[in-house]
Amino acid sequence: MLTYDMSHADKALYLYLYECIRKDILEGELKTDEKMPSKRTLAENLGISTITVENAYGLLISEGYMYTVPKKGYYVSRISRQQLSSQPAAKKLDIDKRRVDEEYSYDFSSNRTERSDFPFSIWARLMRENISLKEKELLTVSPCEGIAELREAIADHLRSFRGMTIDPDQIIVGAGTEYLYGLLIKLLGEDKVYCVENPGYKKLLSIYRSNGVECRYVDLDDHGMRVDMLRSCGAQIIHICPNHHFPTGITMPVSRRYELLAWANEDKGRYIIEDDYDSEFRLKGNPIPPIQSIDACEKVIYMNTFSKSLTSTIRISYMVLPEHLANRFFEKLSFYANTVSTFEQYTLAAFMKRGYFEKHINRMRLRYGRKRTQILDLIKKVLGSEDCRIIENESGLHFVLEFNTDIGDEELKKRLARKKIRMVSITDFYMDELPRDRHQFVLNYSGLSMDGMEDALREIKKVLAEGRKKA
Amino acid sequence: MLTYDMSHADKALYLYLYECIRKDILEGELKTDEKMPSKRTLAENLGISTITVENAYGLLISEGYMYTVPKKGYYVSRISRQQLSSQPAAKKLDIDKRRVDEEYSYDFSSNRTERSDFPFSIWARLMRENISLKEKELLTVSPCEGIAELREAIADHLRSFRGMTIDPDQIIVGAGTEYLYGLLIKLLGEDKVYCVENPGYKKLLSIYRSNGVECRYVDLDDHGMRVDMLRSCGAQIIHICPNHHFPTGITMPVSRRYELLAWANEDKGRYIIEDDYDSEFRLKGNPIPPIQSIDACEKVIYMNTFSKSLTSTIRISYMVLPEHLANRFFEKLSFYANTVSTFEQYTLAAFMKRGYFEKHINRMRLRYGRKRTQILDLIKKVLGSEDCRIIENESGLHFVLEFNTDIGDEELKKRLARKKIRMVSITDFYMDELPRDRHQFVLNYSGLSMDGMEDALREIKKVLAEGRKKA
Repeated sequence: MLTYDMSHADKALYLYLYECIRKDILEGELKTDEKMPSKRTLAENLGISTITVENAYGLLISEGYMYTVPKKGYYVSRISRQQLSSQPAAKKLDIDKRRVDEEYSYDFSSNRTERSDFPFSIWARLMRENISLKEKELLTVSPCEGIAELREAIADHLRSFRGMTIDPDQIIVGAGTEYLYGLLIKLLGEDKVYCVENPGYKKLLSIYRSNGVECRYVDLDDHGMRVDMLRSCGAQIIHICPNHHFPTGITMPVSRRYELLAWANEDKGRYIIEDDYDSEFRLKGNPIPPIQSIDACEKVIYMNTFSKSLTSTIRISYMVLPEHLANRFFEKLSFYANTVSTFEQYTLAAFMKRGYFEKHINRMRLRYGRKRTQILDLIKKVLGSEDCRIIENESGLHFVLEFNTDIGDEELKKRLARKKIRMVSITDFYMDELPRDRHQFVLNYSGLSMDGMEDALREIKKVLAEGRKKA
Repeated sequence: MLTYDMSHADKALYLYLYECIRKDILEGELKTDEKMPSKRTLAENLGISTITVENAYGLLISEGYMYTVPKKGYYVSRISRQQLSSQPAAKKLDIDKRRVDEEYSYDFSSNRTERSDFPFSIWARLMRENISLKEKELLTVSPCEGIAELREAIADHLRSFRGMTIDPDQIIVGAGTEYLYGLLIKLLGEDKVYCVENPGYKKLLSIYRSNGVECRYVDLDDHGMRVDMLRSCGAQIIHICPNHHFPTGITMPVSRRYELLAWANEDKGRYIIEDDYDSEFRLKGNPIPPIQSIDACEKVIYMNTFSKSLTSTIRISYMVLPEHLANRFFEKLSFYANTVSTFEQYTLAAFMKRGYFEKHINRMRLRYGRKRTQILDLIKKVLGSEDCRIIENESGLHFVLEFNTDIGDEELKKRLARKKIRMVSITDFYMDELPRDRHQFVLNYSGLSMDGMEDALREIKKVLAEGRKKA
């Protein structure tokens, strides 16, 4: 007969009893299919109430440690915790994660958003609301392209913010743009030649190549990707950031856009992937409409993400497919499950539908505008025109500083690093092995703290002065 | 001067005022950079309190409709809602989503889990807790492999439930197994020949092929994948479900496991992907240990998902890489961002660390066990041994019925469909175009309702009897 000393209970009696029995089951003191005493018998034996035993048994049954046989009683379940105690602890292998967290006191290169900028309390409230009200929807599997509410909200947003008129059914939602690139390659073909901008976001080249496709790069002139080089390199699908190129900041003029559309129209297999990653943050003037909105021949795939406009920890991006590609997607790739959980899809849909996203964008645009002005003023004050020229067009979350120096780009970065300052140069974004010095450095300001910035700029000034002395 | 009739206010005065001003800004009545009246002037003019104006202005500023210039006053922001009113509504294109929702009154084929089985209230509570307590962590970008807490919890789970001793750094978390297959192909090579089981999960073949790799299939015998055929087909990487094969239900015996390991060890490029998708639901006896745990030569990649054990709407899966592949992953693919949001990673980590996952598995195993018994009893009662033979080994969430009939598999499905009953046959899972009839049908019971099942079984009996009459 089970005997536990109930006077040792350090919590509610039923919980204590539950733990005692659970322990005996897990340790094999109580065997699989062993009959347990009736509630009354055990209660009498332990000198406690039947209700207490009932509560403890109830918990054990609901958690699967015991089962009942009608009219017979309570039995111990089989708990298959394999070789529970004989297992060694987790092992430690020699896995090198290749993360070198260099300590910088000031980092001009990070493109993270500030944590405090994310409207966390609203997001949390909407998530709580959804959890309370949408249990059924949250537990219903999302269609491969994403839930309708979210795609409708995105279509509305694109209409009012980007002047795009689209069918929500053209939108495919996925866990990050990188995932969507993978889908796109499957949709457009692994046998195609892809092409990215040089300089540009190097990761793109890695992503295309790691997907096993041929990926080339084409130089930019002041208007963006050079069409002559594009023609000679044999590319079929180009990936461009026409609205605010990273890192140069170029906004592609309409003439070049039409040239690229003309190029795409020359061949059936040609497409333009338009990456509109930070268009929400054009700070002044009307944003130039996306190429997607002047494409009459279904040649443009528009892509955007919420990682920039909301927070990088929420993995939701989307692409807008031309009609025939949307149909091809549903024909060939709809067996892929959507990669974003319904919890987050519904939260983002509510966030957009109730106007919070628009408010957030407006607030952030103001905040970034102010910050940008502050930083530019500080740069003018500390560095001045003898040290650098500022290259910017009031859009996006970065601008470029061109230093008046003879120090090579790599050497300058090294010298700054010695002073615990991190900067990346435009040459860091060249796909070629050894680009020549351009003396242009990227300043990502979305996550920069104003504290310490003046000191950091003074250090930069010293390094530049040193260079001039030696030269 | 701004004039609004405050007597029309149908809500708090400050909200009404806020809406009036917002409307004027959005409609261009108030122009960009126009100076707004001071709080006191506007209050006097409208005959309301300064506090009311202050509240309205506060809201407009926080939402980005106005901005302040210190010591100067309030100004209208630039709101770039492009061509707001001139935009047409969203368009409707001719996009065919190819979804045919045939109406069945009874569907034996669905492998969905029951919504009510998901421990929603606990999950919601943990999510709320995380939202309250972990703001900083939730807004910190996840490392590419997933957050440490979750990988540790998974390693603990694998130790106690599957007897696997691993380093949490071997685990890569991603948004669904399909996403992870894509990563694996990048890791193992697009030039390799992949191979799946025949019959098997047809989607796998589609996924491998849509990733642009060569994918073949090999027949099974009673012990699983045939090694002779595997050798002759030139496969390098095999994807198998050795612990509970779908749809046949075969559990691969240890001898075949060693044969496959031997095959893998013969060549450097050979690997085994072990898909352990429903091992949590082995209902009786100790689960057979995974091949991963008997692999001494780093040849096995173990994969599992929470879509079966929790709910298919949460997109979290993981793979366990052998040491050298983990190192290759961090060297070559760590530029990929993790595809699961931090919100869900932390919630799942808490769910596992606090023992709720284990409890859930135990509870579900009991519930499924009971359901399975009920269904088997009902089948024996209604159909009996003259109609069918039950093929099952007490594991997983499906079993197989072999009908005693001359009716071909396709014809039987058609006749059942006419009676609004859906069943899938083992032959549906053959990769070949025209497999011969096996008269074996899959019964996925995880989402089946007991209501109506007896009627459905009686209809099946009639269809079988009809077949015999004609034969």
